[in-house]
Amino acid sequence: MTNSAALSPENRPLILMTNDDGIQAKGINELADMLRETGDIVVVAPDSPRSGQSSAISSEFPLRVSLETDRPGYRTYKSNGTPVDCIKLAVNQLLPRRPDLIVSGINHGSNAGACIIYSGTMGAVLEGCLIGIPSIGFSLCSHDPKANFDACRDIVQHTCRQVLQNGLPEQICLNVNIPVVPDIQGIRICRQAKGYWTEEYDHRVDPHGRDYYWLTGRFVNLEPDNTETDEWALANGYISIVPCSTDLTAHTAQSDIKYLIENK
Amino acid sequence: MTNSAALSPENRPLILMTNDDGIQAKGINELADMLRETGDIVVVAPDSPRSGQSSAISSEFPLRVSLETDRPGYRTYKSNGTPVDCIKLAVNQLLPRRPDLIVSGINHGSNAGACIIYSGTMGAVLEGCLIGIPSIGFSLCSHDPKANFDACRDIVQHTCRQVLQNGLPEQICLNVNIPVVPDIQGIRICRQAKGYWTEEYDHRVDPHGRDYYWLTGRFVNLEPDNTETDEWALANGYISIVPCSTDLTAHTAQSDIKYLIENK
Repeated sequence: MTNSAALSPENRPLILMTNDDGIQAKGINELADMLRETGDIVVVAPDSPRSGQSSAISSEFPLRVSLETDRPGYRTYKSNGTPVDCIKLAVNQLLPRRPDLIVSGINHGSNAGACIIYSGTMGAVLEGCLIGIPSIGFSLCSHDPKANFDACRDIVQHTCRQVLQNGLPEQICLNVNIPVVPDIQGIRICRQAKGYWTEEYDHRVDPHGRDYYWLTGRFVNLEPDNTETDEWALANGYISIVPCSTDLTAHTAQSDIKYLIENK
Repeated sequence: MTNSAALSPENRPLILMTNDDGIQAKGINELADMLRETGDIVVVAPDSPRSGQSSAISSEFPLRVSLETDRPGYRTYKSNGTPVDCIKLAVNQLLPRRPDLIVSGINHGSNAGACIIYSGTMGAVLEGCLIGIPSIGFSLCSHDPKANFDACRDIVQHTCRQVLQNGLPEQICLNVNIPVVPDIQGIRICRQAKGYWTEEYDHRVDPHGRDYYWLTGRFVNLEPDNTETDEWALANGYISIVPCSTDLTAHTAQSDIKYLIENK
């Protein structure tokens, strides 16, 4: 597998793309189309859906990669790995140089609120952030495989060009969600809404009398009226942008748990 | 599958356990032994290793669960799901009541620094935190399947009893790592060290001439001398405790990315 052909000289930005819906999904193909004029694009995406894969990595089996498309300024690979595996493979093995930008999506379905924890699309973004590459995840609030992504074009192009020009703060990446509404009201910089998933299983019994469980569930928003949150923005017709960090430390809680040491 | 038998009345704490090394791993069996006197224990753990599964959830296939052990005060189930699936199944379907504490591990290997992002052990802890149950992950800094967990006993018992008695701050969970040293120097409340994994693949060619890639790599600590970090604590013989949050918002960066809206 050679890495030198087809991609343009370094004066055009190199954009790495992945997703968790798989390389065949409409969202990632629309995303590539939207950014065709912004830079050279390399897609490294899962060979089938990997929704809910979070930041999972594969160490129990070897990864395979195959080149699918190789045109000037546009190359695609598919892999048997997770979205994070795709980013790692691309940066470590496939790309001719370090990418200028990582873009993940466009996800079929919201990744606002607690969804970010489970999202493979956002897992890939967090990975890019960890290794110091400006990284953005885009999600459209529709699970329809044939969803219309036209409302995403402007925000995708604007955000990616701004980030390519200005960068992002150190160790910060972006979670951008786009509502499905007749008229988008604007863009809001938000925080992740507090909430969780509940009533999560459809319990069935197979023809042999054995139990099995399908994951289902619904999201409980713990602060539906809070205008600072991404869920509020989306429910009110705004695009939400949440700056995210890979540092999970609850810095303000460090003093609250001192009793664990003091009582020792 | 009935949920009512064997477990004691509500006056004993109910402790839910899982891990990502699988139900057969030494670490989780030692953990159950350490907490046998602290409360009633229900283990719901993966049927095989799920290292690196992060907060992955399974929606592409149905989940199965089987009861393995059913003794007074001690019950174990194995599942074909991820660690987060195990927590969700337990809380939604298997437990007689909401658990008082979730404990994950003891992981075979460190989950300090950026490892938390990929860890299935910590994925389960973050899930417990999201649904409002005090949750703690324990990891021993040894990948040896036969590792000696004796050095974990005191911190496991102390931390779990303190948390059962005092609770944890809202939306906060704990990432506890234990070093492998002749004499533990003490316990430190830390923050997650900045760093990432690099040189991540062993690239091979199969007998048919096709490429494949094994995930390997090494951790780059970006701040090895910073005494605030979990990596420093462990390298210097201390047990590290990091309070963690499921809110990935980089709150202090919200103003830094206003240019995305202002230039619009």
